[in-house]
Amino acid sequence: MSSGIDRNGTEPRRRGRRRSGADTRAALLAAAREVFIEQGYTGATVRAIAGRAGVDPAMVNHWFGGKEGLFAAAVSIPVNPAEVIPQLLQGDPEQLAERMVRRFLSVWDEAGGGEFVALVRSLAVHDEAVAMLKEFVTTLLFGRLTEALGMDQPELRAALCGSQIVGLGMARYVVRLEPLASADHDTVVAAVAPNLQRYLTGDLGTPP
Amino acid sequence: MSSGIDRNGTEPRRRGRRRSGADTRAALLAAAREVFIEQGYTGATVRAIAGRAGVDPAMVNHWFGGKEGLFAAAVSIPVNPAEVIPQLLQGDPEQLAERMVRRFLSVWDEAGGGEFVALVRSLAVHDEAVAMLKEFVTTLLFGRLTEALGMDQPELRAALCGSQIVGLGMARYVVRLEPLASADHDTVVAAVAPNLQRYLTGDLGTPP
Repeated sequence: MSSGIDRNGTEPRRRGRRRSGADTRAALLAAAREVFIEQGYTGATVRAIAGRAGVDPAMVNHWFGGKEGLFAAAVSIPVNPAEVIPQLLQGDPEQLAERMVRRFLSVWDEAGGGEFVALVRSLAVHDEAVAMLKEFVTTLLFGRLTEALGMDQPELRAALCGSQIVGLGMARYVVRLEPLASADHDTVVAAVAPNLQRYLTGDLGTPP
Repeated sequence: MSSGIDRNGTEPRRRGRRRSGADTRAALLAAAREVFIEQGYTGATVRAIAGRAGVDPAMVNHWFGGKEGLFAAAVSIPVNPAEVIPQLLQGDPEQLAERMVRRFLSVWDEAGGGEFVALVRSLAVHDEAVAMLKEFVTTLLFGRLTEALGMDQPELRAALCGSQIVGLGMARYVVRLEPLASADHDTVVAAVAPNLQRYLTGDLGTPP
């Protein structure tokens, strides 16, 4: 095959052909999208993804800092849960929502929200993107935060947080509802964080 | 022209050609999408839309109950603000959010949320759909509700409501975050309505 990768995904090193770094990274992303969709986040292994890409498993650490970073990159979310979660959990749990909203705005405001728009576009077109975002929200990001809080109903809380955060992105970046779309971060935090905090640690009004 | 409609949108009645009802409705929807995008909701007139479609302006009332219903149909939202707003405003303003969430779920749960998914798909593909949804949310639906409440910052409140309601639809119908996606209406209302109510009538934490 012209790419130099056989069907089992092992690199034919005997040819001594060297890939560029960009090629390696792109091959890992393409393989990750396939293997994460086939196996889910938990089932997919770094070894299987590297094998599919025809590169050494160490390249996953080198390019993405590990499996979580590779997943975030594959789903086009510029957030690595392995870095972000410990930072968010540090400090008063009653101010966790404020830290989340600030982080959300600082990540996605870059490039005028273009990456968020691209994410929604991919959701609308590819069912696989939906499955991967679902996995990201429930297993990797909000699910882990609500688990760490030790509250009742962590899954419902995670889904509710997802609804508010995704909705904030839709309103600010996709539909551009003013004055929310242009509001400064302090205004958005003051308005949205108390609601998000209720989803994290408040009374949801339902029997657990 | 083969359609029998001249460029100015007046129907050449002298030919005595009759359209079917479905043709008339489809022609009005197509014309409405063009005229609303060109002129905005306020600027577009029933007369201009009917003229573009080549039908009698009375057909707008006949098929859509008026300009608002035509707009809702054009933007593929199964809600006519002219009907819904008076119903929502009736009763205790402190329970307005509960009525909104119940109405939202009863409208969009039909067909498994398929219409909501179609709406998001159209947002991702057509910039005009974004402009029309923006107009719907700000001018016609949430904006009018928050104006009617007489609170400070009605536009910010409307945009915040939009963020939570659109986010609820994304979580329940598009990404299908469980257990929110399958939760019964009472559970969703208990969890979400207090947050929406804060956006409507609560303290937003910002100077007005």
